[in-house]
Amino acid sequence: MRCVFFISDRTGLTTESIGNALLTQFPTAQFKREFIPFVDTITKASKAIVKIKARYFQYNERPIVFTSILEPKIRDMFKLDCVCHIDFFESFTPILENEIGTKASNILGMSHGINDENKYNKRIDAIDFSLHNDDGIHVDNYDIADVILVGVSRVGKTPTCLYLAVNYGIKAANYPFADLDLINDKLPKILVPYYGKLFGLTIDVDRLHQIRSNRLPNSKYADINNCRQEIAAAEHIMQRYDIPYLNVSKRSIEELSVGIIERIKLNR
Amino acid sequence: MRCVFFISDRTGLTTESIGNALLTQFPTAQFKREFIPFVDTITKASKAIVKIKARYFQYNERPIVFTSILEPKIRDMFKLDCVCHIDFFESFTPILENEIGTKASNILGMSHGINDENKYNKRIDAIDFSLHNDDGIHVDNYDIADVILVGVSRVGKTPTCLYLAVNYGIKAANYPFADLDLINDKLPKILVPYYGKLFGLTIDVDRLHQIRSNRLPNSKYADINNCRQEIAAAEHIMQRYDIPYLNVSKRSIEELSVGIIERIKLNR
Repeated sequence: MRCVFFISDRTGLTTESIGNALLTQFPTAQFKREFIPFVDTITKASKAIVKIKARYFQYNERPIVFTSILEPKIRDMFKLDCVCHIDFFESFTPILENEIGTKASNILGMSHGINDENKYNKRIDAIDFSLHNDDGIHVDNYDIADVILVGVSRVGKTPTCLYLAVNYGIKAANYPFADLDLINDKLPKILVPYYGKLFGLTIDVDRLHQIRSNRLPNSKYADINNCRQEIAAAEHIMQRYDIPYLNVSKRSIEELSVGIIERIKLNR
Repeated sequence: MRCVFFISDRTGLTTESIGNALLTQFPTAQFKREFIPFVDTITKASKAIVKIKARYFQYNERPIVFTSILEPKIRDMFKLDCVCHIDFFESFTPILENEIGTKASNILGMSHGINDENKYNKRIDAIDFSLHNDDGIHVDNYDIADVILVGVSRVGKTPTCLYLAVNYGIKAANYPFADLDLINDKLPKILVPYYGKLFGLTIDVDRLHQIRSNRLPNSKYADINNCRQEIAAAEHIMQRYDIPYLNVSKRSIEELSVGIIERIKLNR
């Protein structure tokens, strides 16, 4: 068991993201993760170091300590013999200073703060929009939608819409194909004017059966033959109308969101 | 204007996160950002390089190219004279190999894929939960909530709940203090049994006035004196019952979420 610390002077989201990406390259190793955000004073750093040293004595192995700390005085406190220390700012900042030709400012890393109020308000608006236009409950705002996700029930439209809204400020509505739409083998009338904004999600039959069974066991809704028919009919509509679509079965919400942005060239 | 590319063999979310964190240190420079995810073949890399070179000739300045690419053959294609190239895996992987004592696997970085199905399902469940328990509409599920956010209307409870659900799989409900709660100066009865799960959000008067005015201009709801009273009453309840709380005015959704996790020690 190797202890890993993620320490940052701000939220630590960046530190966590890249640290974890690096660790996934060592699938056989076992890691015990601890997160210490907002370490922006010498006192807080000292407290973190007490914890790190305790883990070192407890496990008799050097903890790996990922840090993103701008202030060199605080950052350097983690350069200890009992620690494998990697700081993300320290490593790359000099390369960028050299390339850009200016000194890096010592303002705290604001990448996850409110550094751009317009962009921030855009995200809040997009969240409101996605909630209001979830699951076809309101269909009167499609003219201001950035994208409208379509697909059968429980394919993952709502989580994807919310991810797009929360993380990118993209106004994402979603419309579930209803039985009648699927039987008629036609794009619902309400969607026709917004054809260019449509993006489809589809799913493997087994996976949909499993998800629906968790919700309503032994129902027609969850029945594997019903799932098969619905998926086939939905895909048929998407192909017939040339709507771009992705299969969600092997993709995370993040992968779907980035895939959608990429395919229909949404502004992030 | 300096062109910056974020290129990854997967979603590129990590690349974007750390690349942007580094760039915020150069607030006077102007950057034009382009994102190219899923670059996992030599063909896709060649296409990306055509774009990068075009930008170099267009702006007559070396583009900064951040990459996270595991396959050295593909990654090395970006080591060009006309490019300032920074790869995040390349820089740190050898340090970790040395420390952990095993070779890094060449499996694609799965940090944003479905690598842990349970954890993934937990997120989907948390999103369903947050939608179902938004804004006090249902109050029958508080026993399985991880946290219940309280505060006045439009303080930012919903976006924060959704961020906690989407990104951490935390089941976050939210309950708005109603007029009656505020007048009574008492914790609503329904919340009393879940006292230990409560976390408060508060806000500056001007900011709440501004947000509410955007929604309902010239209403009592948005009136600055009304906002002032509501905030004072809500803070009074939080202080009286010793509910931990944060002011949202200068904090992003990310900062709030990490702050809440940190303060009440939620499992991520």
